Amino acid sequence: MSGSLVVVGTGPGRPELMTPASLAAIERATDLVGYGPYLDRVTLRADQCRHASDNRVELERARQALSLAASGRHVAVVSGGDPGVFAMAAAIFEAVESGDPAWRALDIRVEPGVTAMLAAAAEVGAPLGGDFCAISLSDNLKSWATIERRLTAAARADFVIALYNPASKARPHQLGQAFDLLRTIKSDETPVLFVRAAGSAEAKVVATTLAAADGALADMRTLVIIGASTTRSVGRWIYTPRREA
Amino acid sequence: MSGSLVVVGTGPGRPELMTPASLAAIERATDLVGYGPYLDRVTLRADQCRHASDNRVELERARQALSLAASGRHVAVVSGGDPGVFAMAAAIFEAVESGDPAWRALDIRVEPGVTAMLAAAAEVGAPLGGDFCAISLSDNLKSWATIERRLTAAARADFVIALYNPASKARPHQLGQAFDLLRTIKSDETPVLFVRAAGSAEAKVVATTLAAADGALADMRTLVIIGASTTRSVGRWIYTPRREA
Repeated sequence: MSGSLVVVGTGPGRPELMTPASLAAIERATDLVGYGPYLDRVTLRADQCRHASDNRVELERARQALSLAASGRHVAVVSGGDPGVFAMAAAIFEAVESGDPAWRALDIRVEPGVTAMLAAAAEVGAPLGGDFCAISLSDNLKSWATIERRLTAAARADFVIALYNPASKARPHQLGQAFDLLRTIKSDETPVLFVRAAGSAEAKVVATTLAAADGALADMRTLVIIGASTTRSVGRWIYTPRREA
Repeated sequence: MSGSLVVVGTGPGRPELMTPASLAAIERATDLVGYGPYLDRVTLRADQCRHASDNRVELERARQALSLAASGRHVAVVSGGDPGVFAMAAAIFEAVESGDPAWRALDIRVEPGVTAMLAAAAEVGAPLGGDFCAISLSDNLKSWATIERRLTAAARADFVIALYNPASKARPHQLGQAFDLLRTIKSDETPVLFVRAAGSAEAKVVATTLAAADGALADMRTLVIIGASTTRSVGRWIYTPRREA
């Protein structure tokens, strides 16, 4: 068993935001496993096998990748962004934990990448300039009560908040509920940023306030940033100063 | 006034973790401004001017960079990691806000990069696999009371916690105080990771528990990750599953 598995991220979209280390890991692979649109960002050679799958079968995809590695293949599991942030790396280790004990002896590595909130922040200035947190708004794998508890704690402690997976066709109303909750704690003037397709050629920013924020502005490709009490605009940029007041 | 300013990050250390977009921005610059050790990571051409400075003069460095851009130069301000996370981007916008009103018309951009916590997480598996927060433990620019309030909120809401700037010669005891506080809220068995020089050739990991965590293990180049209640080891990796229980 001399196969290997590396989990890589393509970054937020533009090829220039994928690290050379991730590109090299993909080039060394015999097999590429991932959600189709992420694999589409990568140019495969004729001798590389492509295993594309749907977006909602992470554990199945992880098991397939581990099986291939256990059979001696060199597998790259391709995520968007950074694979360790709301992406495939955790799914791989879940599959290791619940799967064939031999998988624990495999050569498994993770390559870091540029995650969406960093690209979204860079589009508008430096809104993550102070302490911040990242919360996935998807309740597929955790309860909505847990999400509300974390939003409340983050708002009360005045973190900048980055929301991943803010909305999907199956969950159109949760972002609006999150804004309603945050409005009971934070100032109406708090900057709220909707950054769609951050770090890609189609990037689009809507900057508004918490009072005016409309959950319907977000979709699967949107990253939402809600400022801390100090977050503000200067010129056409939005940033959070390093000082607390 | 046709100068420009771009804030770039070199990533966590290995050149292969700097994005091609950041490298291209550096190559286009006439002037490079930054802390000496970060500038040392970049190969300058003979026609590029190097403006190195000490680590503790961010605002002064930001003003120098803005003045150069206002005089028509194309300036790259070079940070480590991602420039928007506890690095130079916020300092640039602070300097814009408090400086020459003409600076608000400048062409200023931020290039995202791989920040230290992502590289640290990748060294050990996927500890940032759930909701997480990033807190700078430096009280140069905010009060220790604010830091304690955020640590408490993050622990109670069961975020994974990444600590930047955990210790320095001037602040040798704060990480120990942070662990003492977290021990009053979180389980003794909570995984704690000290990742030094993550994403560089000298990367070194110490994995321990909250009960055993010793603040003296950290220095300026260490990133500390404190797990959520679900963070655990499988084989030689540590990860946070996507499910909450």
